[in-house]
Amino acid sequence: MRATDLATPGTDAWLDRTLGGGVEVFDLGRPLYRGMPQSPNHPPYWHTLPRRHGDAVRADGGSAAADHISLGTHVGTHVDAFSHVSHDGRLFGGVDAVENQRGGAMTAHGAETIEPMFRRGVLLDVPAALGLAACEPGYEITPDDLDLTARRQRVDVREGDVVLLRSGWGARFGRGGPAEYVGHDSGVPGIGEAGAHWLAERRVHAAGADTIAFECLPPGRGHSLLPAHRVLLVEHGTYIIETLDLEAVAAAAVHEFLFVLSPLKLVGATGSPVRPLAVTPKAAS
Amino acid sequence: MRATDLATPGTDAWLDRTLGGGVEVFDLGRPLYRGMPQSPNHPPYWHTLPRRHGDAVRADGGSAAADHISLGTHVGTHVDAFSHVSHDGRLFGGVDAVENQRGGAMTAHGAETIEPMFRRGVLLDVPAALGLAACEPGYEITPDDLDLTARRQRVDVREGDVVLLRSGWGARFGRGGPAEYVGHDSGVPGIGEAGAHWLAERRVHAAGADTIAFECLPPGRGHSLLPAHRVLLVEHGTYIIETLDLEAVAAAAVHEFLFVLSPLKLVGATGSPVRPLAVTPKAAS
Amino acid sequence: MRATDLATPGTDAWLDRTLGGGVEVFDLGRPLYRGMPQSPNHPPYWHTLPRRHGDAVRADGGSAAADHISLGTHVGTHVDAFSHVSHDGRLFGGVDAVENQRGGAMTAHGAETIEPMFRRGVLLDVPAALGLAACEPGYEITPDDLDLTARRQRVDVREGDVVLLRSGWGARFGRGGPAEYVGHDSGVPGIGEAGAHWLAERRVHAAGADTIAFECLPPGRGHSLLPAHRVLLVEHGTYIIETLDLEAVAAAAVHEFLFVLSPLKLVGATGSPVRPLAVTPKAAS
Amino acid sequence: MRATDLATPGTDAWLDRTLGGGVEVFDLGRPLYRGMPQSPNHPPYWHTLPRRHGDAVRADGGSAAADHISLGTHVGTHVDAFSHVSHDGRLFGGVDAVENQRGGAMTAHGAETIEPMFRRGVLLDVPAALGLAACEPGYEITPDDLDLTARRQRVDVREGDVVLLRSGWGARFGRGGPAEYVGHDSGVPGIGEAGAHWLAERRVHAAGADTIAFECLPPGRGHSLLPAHRVLLVEHGTYIIETLDLEAVAAAAVHEFLFVLSPLKLVGATGSPVRPLAVTPKAAS
Repeated sequence: MRATDLATPGTDAWLDRTLGGGVEVFDLGRPLYRGMPQSPNHPPYWHTLPRRHGDAVRADGGSAAADHISLGTHVGTHVDAFSHVSHDGRLFGGVDAVENQRGGAMTAHGAETIEPMFRRGVLLDVPAALGLAACEPGYEITPDDLDLTARRQRVDVREGDVVLLRSGWGARFGRGGPAEYVGHDSGVPGIGEAGAHWLAERRVHAAGADTIAFECLPPGRGHSLLPAHRVLLVEHGTYIIETLDLEAVAAAAVHEFLFVLSPLKLVGATGSPVRPLAVTPKAAS
Repeated sequence: MRATDLATPGTDAWLDRTLGGGVEVFDLGRPLYRGMPQSPNHPPYWHTLPRRHGDAVRADGGSAAADHISLGTHVGTHVDAFSHVSHDGRLFGGVDAVENQRGGAMTAHGAETIEPMFRRGVLLDVPAALGLAACEPGYEITPDDLDLTARRQRVDVREGDVVLLRSGWGARFGRGGPAEYVGHDSGVPGIGEAGAHWLAERRVHAAGADTIAFECLPPGRGHSLLPAHRVLLVEHGTYIIETLDLEAVAAAAVHEFLFVLSPLKLVGATGSPVRPLAVTPKAAS
Repeated sequence: MRATDLATPGTDAWLDRTLGGGVEVFDLGRPLYRGMPQSPNHPPYWHTLPRRHGDAVRADGGSAAADHISLGTHVGTHVDAFSHVSHDGRLFGGVDAVENQRGGAMTAHGAETIEPMFRRGVLLDVPAALGLAACEPGYEITPDDLDLTARRQRVDVREGDVVLLRSGWGARFGRGGPAEYVGHDSGVPGIGEAGAHWLAERRVHAAGADTIAFECLPPGRGHSLLPAHRVLLVEHGTYIIETLDLEAVAAAAVHEFLFVLSPLKLVGATGSPVRPLAVTPKAAS
Repeated sequence: MRATDLATPGTDAWLDRTLGGGVEVFDLGRPLYRGMPQSPNHPPYWHTLPRRHGDAVRADGGSAAADHISLGTHVGTHVDAFSHVSHDGRLFGGVDAVENQRGGAMTAHGAETIEPMFRRGVLLDVPAALGLAACEPGYEITPDDLDLTARRQRVDVREGDVVLLRSGWGARFGRGGPAEYVGHDSGVPGIGEAGAHWLAERRVHAAGADTIAFECLPPGRGHSLLPAHRVLLVEHGTYIIETLDLEAVAAAAVHEFLFVLSPLKLVGATGSPVRPLAVTPKAAS
């Protein structure tokens, strides 16, 4: 008997069951770097080294370097808090949006209120199910597409899941200039209002995509309407995750996994940069 | 048979084993907010809302708010990359520290190279083992203290673990002014060089503490010498995690858990803010 | 005859009259540096070098270094735009304060609307006139004090002037910790509502002081009421300049000068950092 | 006799001579705003309102708004400090460039060492003298062009002057997208090494231009070589001012003026944003 068995009965055995056979950890986060693709509506990511090795050397030969970062919270892979979007002046739960932001930070629904996610995740690889490399720019993914994808993948979406929607658009990240991924002119594929209702009916906990805007942007319309954000963030209290890297899980045909996401506790913020993970047992990948 | 069983054999059963009985997720991250305790040597955390609800309202009644954040990467709960500290001009693995930072970002050992951690974690609650509420300011936690704590907790430290060292200092976070937690004048408890060797000998993957500096700061000496950083980051390639909130896991006497940490992929940075998690099966907490 | 005389008749002669005998340029701006005294209500000044010499060397041996600065606009020596302060929801001229800031920047009265100042300036050295080194913390400078100072200095305040009020507090800048100059606990000397009316009656263009808050802060009251800001910025359209360095002009007994101030054209901002100048003919200093 | 005549003999009369007939103040600074044209090599200008009117209302009905700005110092209209450029590892005066930046800020030649400029200024409107609206993209302005321009304008360049070189490129600022003014692809007109020697021989105090780079950028070569920066900043200690707005002075045919520039005292920085002025007597404009 190991010493720990007495102190935390069950944990040791649970760890053996979870970790014992080895796990595969898929990294769903995009790198953050100067000049990375991001929406021009948000403060650009900028990194500098205010201190470098050799700036100050301690008596024992030690030295340190350190960073300054400046960025929007809807930059890179990130999760939207419910305080991000309002409709007719209301946030999720009927909170008055203008009152809630008085003082320069969100009183309710700040990023610090997003509980860490450690739950079942599902990938719906739409273009793979449709026999495409990627959805077309501006294509609206329909409920039929989602049903078809789940059926072909033989995966079911359950209440409380995190559902990640692959459009194939993510392959553009870091390819060509930033505009190629941002896609404001070309349009960007994603679900529309109908697809958001499909997710809401299944009572998923969060939904994500491999694009910046999560939902379909018709060509030339920019962000003029964002109905899926309304349905999910405002009406149903479903988190949205954007700019995910779904290429590796898709290539490995990993459609079901343990999804882990731990947002920074940015008090009163409308979102947080994150690096989500998809975890499977070793054999399954 | 569920649909998923065919597609990803084993994952569904593994998820049942891991999640089926329910899990307890302990949040080890501190909140980030203006005026939070942080070292004056690093860029202060600052949050603003460049856009607020009502600034622009779409035709359908939708509106959005968004943030700008500015901070050092060694601010709040964070993990140190191997590029953070050098000794005699060398980083871990013998990398030339000055050459490595040429261009204003780290070529090797940047924060983006820190693999997500999903592995066994151990809490060593030193003051609890010593019968104290908290270690004294400036107290150096010795190898004997660590041995005693592990023995009294009936927990063993294994190769590849993440070991979190509680000093009790964390209760000062957010209490009084920032100086009370930063502790540059009073001294701060933690391990010294000997404690770092104790960890290195056990080949742990990472080590963390509930203080900003991780290691013992003798009263009035500030950061004049940081031997544990040298031993762990430079000599052994062991990550260091700082400003952890260990109060809840300690109160629940949770000494063994699944440790999850997923640093932001800040290319060329010396560290990343994080929100680490300690996960146990429901019954165990 | 010089060539220029034909092209710009009069300018050459005017330059001779203005510059010919030599001028003395007094620098009224404080240095900006990490850790400088500033109000904790505003984003702290932070400077870093994202690029350093040697990071990239061109074929010809050339290299460059460059900076990133982050700061509030009411940090260091700065001028307040009329958009900075509202009263009962109105800015100067009756502008609706909330409507004016919709979109995240000021539509009217932004810092870019502050015309450069190139006009007569007057120093009122109150403690010198009162026979003191400096006014007491929290002392309210009265209209009688201002009259007495002008009379003893034999200087008259005229319409359109910029009037700089010395309290002697400025000697604390950079002495001891930042709190010594910020003075939130001790109180800070300056004019109150009556002194603001004294200035407004004389139709001055702008008024400045050697403190952060410009006006009297009674001990322990912080910024709970700022009546002089209301009288000058909101009611009379008089600019306010803060954190001036008036020590050198006072030491030289220079009470009348050409005042020059050229704010950065920060579109939609509520103020701008500046480095104002007091210029006199050489002999006069 | 006015009261002031006794206290500061001569100043009152000098002010009358300088200001008495009225002055024309030309604003040579460009506005700073999100999305403004700037080099992608420097931290982008970003402005936010962390505090808005109504966030906190004092008992008397007063409220305040305030800003956060983040930018490079070589963004918008700005002056280069001598610490900006090195050649073969040396700054102006032989200062070791790498040693000088140790610690993360410039020890010598920081922006705080740039004395305010209050001296004769000359505009050389090259395209006007050449009978053009603007110099061609990538055109190198030659010493012959400079001689011809001075002669046609009937203006002489004297030791200690600030010489502003108009290329006509400035009309592109704010027209089309930022790339039109930045001009990295098209090339940008300006002086080359020969033109820099022409200025250095005349011992001017500073030189400026209506472009970001000050000197000629041949098409497709970017910033691969910057010989005029070397000649002026490193070899002769002549300041460089960039991104000037020279359109209004050129339109008014004002070729000689009082030039005023007062850089922020950014300690250890390599440059400062500024809003320079050209002042003439009223009649002369």
